[in-house]
Amino acid sequence: MRGLLVGRMQPFHRGHLQVIKSILEEVDELIICIGSAQLSHSIRDPFTAGERVMMLTKALSENGIPASRYYIIPVQDIECNALWVGHIKMLTPPFDRVYSGNPLVQRLFSEDGYEVTAPPLFYRDRYSGTEVRRRMLDDGDWRSLLPESVVEVIDEINGVERIKHLAKKEVSELGGIS
Amino acid sequence: MRGLLVGRMQPFHRGHLQVIKSILEEVDELIICIGSAQLSHSIRDPFTAGERVMMLTKALSENGIPASRYYIIPVQDIECNALWVGHIKMLTPPFDRVYSGNPLVQRLFSEDGYEVTAPPLFYRDRYSGTEVRRRMLDDGDWRSLLPESVVEVIDEINGVERIKHLAKKEVSELGGIS
Amino acid sequence: MRGLLVGRMQPFHRGHLQVIKSILEEVDELIICIGSAQLSHSIRDPFTAGERVMMLTKALSENGIPASRYYIIPVQDIECNALWVGHIKMLTPPFDRVYSGNPLVQRLFSEDGYEVTAPPLFYRDRYSGTEVRRRMLDDGDWRSLLPESVVEVIDEINGVERIKHLAKKEVSELGGIS
Amino acid sequence: MRGLLVGRMQPFHRGHLQVIKSILEEVDELIICIGSAQLSHSIRDPFTAGERVMMLTKALSENGIPASRYYIIPVQDIECNALWVGHIKMLTPPFDRVYSGNPLVQRLFSEDGYEVTAPPLFYRDRYSGTEVRRRMLDDGDWRSLLPESVVEVIDEINGVERIKHLAKKEVSELGGIS
Amino acid sequence: MRGLLVGRMQPFHRGHLQVIKSILEEVDELIICIGSAQLSHSIRDPFTAGERVMMLTKALSENGIPASRYYIIPVQDIECNALWVGHIKMLTPPFDRVYSGNPLVQRLFSEDGYEVTAPPLFYRDRYSGTEVRRRMLDDGDWRSLLPESVVEVIDEINGVERIKHLAKKEVSELGGIS
Amino acid sequence: MRGLLVGRMQPFHRGHLQVIKSILEEVDELIICIGSAQLSHSIRDPFTAGERVMMLTKALSENGIPASRYYIIPVQDIECNALWVGHIKMLTPPFDRVYSGNPLVQRLFSEDGYEVTAPPLFYRDRYSGTEVRRRMLDDGDWRSLLPESVVEVIDEINGVERIKHLAKKEVSELGGIS
Repeated sequence: MRGLLVGRMQPFHRGHLQVIKSILEEVDELIICIGSAQLSHSIRDPFTAGERVMMLTKALSENGIPASRYYIIPVQDIECNALWVGHIKMLTPPFDRVYSGNPLVQRLFSEDGYEVTAPPLFYRDRYSGTEVRRRMLDDGDWRSLLPESVVEVIDEINGVERIKHLAKKEVSELGGIS
Repeated sequence: MRGLLVGRMQPFHRGHLQVIKSILEEVDELIICIGSAQLSHSIRDPFTAGERVMMLTKALSENGIPASRYYIIPVQDIECNALWVGHIKMLTPPFDRVYSGNPLVQRLFSEDGYEVTAPPLFYRDRYSGTEVRRRMLDDGDWRSLLPESVVEVIDEINGVERIKHLAKKEVSELGGIS
Repeated sequence: MRGLLVGRMQPFHRGHLQVIKSILEEVDELIICIGSAQLSHSIRDPFTAGERVMMLTKALSENGIPASRYYIIPVQDIECNALWVGHIKMLTPPFDRVYSGNPLVQRLFSEDGYEVTAPPLFYRDRYSGTEVRRRMLDDGDWRSLLPESVVEVIDEINGVERIKHLAKKEVSELGGIS
Repeated sequence: MRGLLVGRMQPFHRGHLQVIKSILEEVDELIICIGSAQLSHSIRDPFTAGERVMMLTKALSENGIPASRYYIIPVQDIECNALWVGHIKMLTPPFDRVYSGNPLVQRLFSEDGYEVTAPPLFYRDRYSGTEVRRRMLDDGDWRSLLPESVVEVIDEINGVERIKHLAKKEVSELGGIS
Repeated sequence: MRGLLVGRMQPFHRGHLQVIKSILEEVDELIICIGSAQLSHSIRDPFTAGERVMMLTKALSENGIPASRYYIIPVQDIECNALWVGHIKMLTPPFDRVYSGNPLVQRLFSEDGYEVTAPPLFYRDRYSGTEVRRRMLDDGDWRSLLPESVVEVIDEINGVERIKHLAKKEVSELGGIS
Repeated sequence: MRGLLVGRMQPFHRGHLQVIKSILEEVDELIICIGSAQLSHSIRDPFTAGERVMMLTKALSENGIPASRYYIIPVQDIECNALWVGHIKMLTPPFDRVYSGNPLVQRLFSEDGYEVTAPPLFYRDRYSGTEVRRRMLDDGDWRSLLPESVVEVIDEINGVERIKHLAKKEVSELGGIS
């Protein structure tokens, strides 16, 4: 039995870790898709797909989860919802069950004949990407929300400095990307 | 004289039908472009282009409009407004007059030398895609706003179930597309 | 029972017409996808999707085939073969059987669970797009290979002049698209 | 020493002109990238890249700035922030210093090892694209905010008529692009 | 020290395995990018990225290579060679050395300041994707060229049946993708 | 009177220079579009758009052509020939006459109502991008075919080293982009 889970992981936190651990009690292997792989360097999506691959790999390894039990695959968003399931199937090994708490993902996979289950929840208000990024910007305690190895990765890439810089007010209309 | 009309038709309702009937009194043939053909499975754009092609074809046939008098062509959005008219011209037979109540479409076609006319309005507040979708979500009377054949198509593809599912609250940050 | 057929129709000739007539003896409705809708103005693909939509519509109408029995839908190529079936399904009403003599199309649809049948052949050597275009370039008798209405369309859009111009030798390295 | 500056220039106004003049006191040559080159015909981005190239070229020439001291290069937006610097480098001659008041642009270039400086400000509240477009819509005095040659270009392309037309209320759901 | 290697792996064979083993003697971790992740279902590129991810994962696991020592990341081709290195860097953890025998890849990474080394060769004439696919089409002994687990994957997905079907002669011009 | 000329300029040579000089005798201003702006790092297209912008700018300046008389605009290829003229018009100031020796470009602009003239030829066999690149690979006398300033640019960016590296034989199947 192979499961599939999709998340932006911006960044990978303890809530994600608990969900993965609990799913791995039900399946032999879990495909973890890192969503919006094309996005980075924004307050909502500060980290590149490569940086998030590293966070996941180190956190799962640090927590003794054998790498043979999971695949980590970055997946870029595509414009056509109707093609999204095919896009995922193209980039991943075959899978049997989809874990998602998102209505759109649930709908797309169920219309394609897949079994879809909502993943278990772990203190959703405390452990969320939004909460982690908020604490980073406000010099709050973001570190306690993340596995240690992920904290190291974020320190290594100056992650907090990056998100604070992005949050600065635009000084001049000139020099903007759009 | 061949006319052109663009609409998302999410879904095709009685207002659309009346407008098409009245335009067909002025032109020999009408090209009906189904806009945003790449969008589906969202509360604003729940139905695929293929499903909307079927709604239109059955509704016009049911209302005795000879298929020889119209073309139904799905058209995907493109990013460059400056190329949109060329994009439409590439996918359609040549046409003489454009029917549009949308300022942007009016401007783009008129800058390309086309004659542009606002289509006649039929109880715009009652017959609108927004109103149909609102009634679907609130278990209101959406059926009376649509041609019968369109109701059949929506029932066949579980259209209301789809839009209600999409409107559910996201349970967990995990499993989201982005 | 609804069938699906994909062809570039560059241009629509008598062979295509015979195939469609014979398929319509087996199905209630036929979805005719005009492939490579994004291509035009090359010797292999001289006509735009819109021009080909017009050729098909007029030829089928001229041959007494009721428009209620078919859909004509332009479909652009996409890079990922693995997403092509989903791309077709997004743009078309649901269908039951696929008619294709192309190994790749056969494979993609059969891997997606569809019934696939090779379309009947009609003097394939005589009636082929390649043969029609060859005769156009060599001032041969291309007209006899096409339904009359298609000849009219091609004359209307100066189709032969276009393909001959495209076949001219490049005079200077400057002024080329790439 | 070659500098780089990116701006949407919707339209090119006296503030832009002052900034460019002051930067040219610090560098030998300045690469001026016209951002969002794919956008036009919207209230926020009314003018095409080509129209903006003409505004810049005429304004700089009118102000005696020798064309040998600058490059004007239209650059389309791309989805991946992580590739944006590479995208700019592909389309421009090599450069040494980046002038930007935008946090995202500053961050992307500094993470790629470039020296980044905020451009000098000139009455940012008075001279801004937003203010020019607002005055155009309200029949205010937009002309005084722009170099004369830019006023001529906007008159030549009926720029004010275009932005006013785009600002009209949508009459009917039909005929919209999306 | 983290290395990077890119290959289409169509399919993953014993030569690939040997190269990876020898590189892992020089680096702590190896990022294995599966190139042309968007291609599948052609004679040159028969398998999807997901199928190739599975081949690699099972073969490396079967050969006792701890999964903590490598990352497997599918990467789609992009049109701009000048952006390709940035595209790779976006999807992968940071890396120090690139292993490539391809002149273009060598050039792009060296122009971006990376150390580039040609990977060791293992009977390149015998172990090559081209040779494996040729034997599959000719009912030759393709199995001996692949790790056992990869043979299992190919049998599971009817890989040989797929490539033989794709190699059949096109029966009719109709039903082709382009 | 403003003219338009499109060329890949791989690289900009004395033939290009002569053609531009002769066209400038007939028009007030010339828009020079650098085609295939997205291509670089291949034997046929070795130089980026930015490098080619620099070659042109320096060569025209070196030859006393006032920069006020021309625009240099990089233009990426697009897939749809039918949209190519609109794509050019979006990125350039308005123009009156097109100079092209390429049948496809001639056809597309003439179908859009433009006056199209073949540019004058200057020893087309001697001065051609193909001949320059051939001499670069064979250590022939490529320098005499180019304006001096272009030779300097190519030396500055190690252009010959790049094209020679790209021409090397692929050592191993691994490490290839596709």
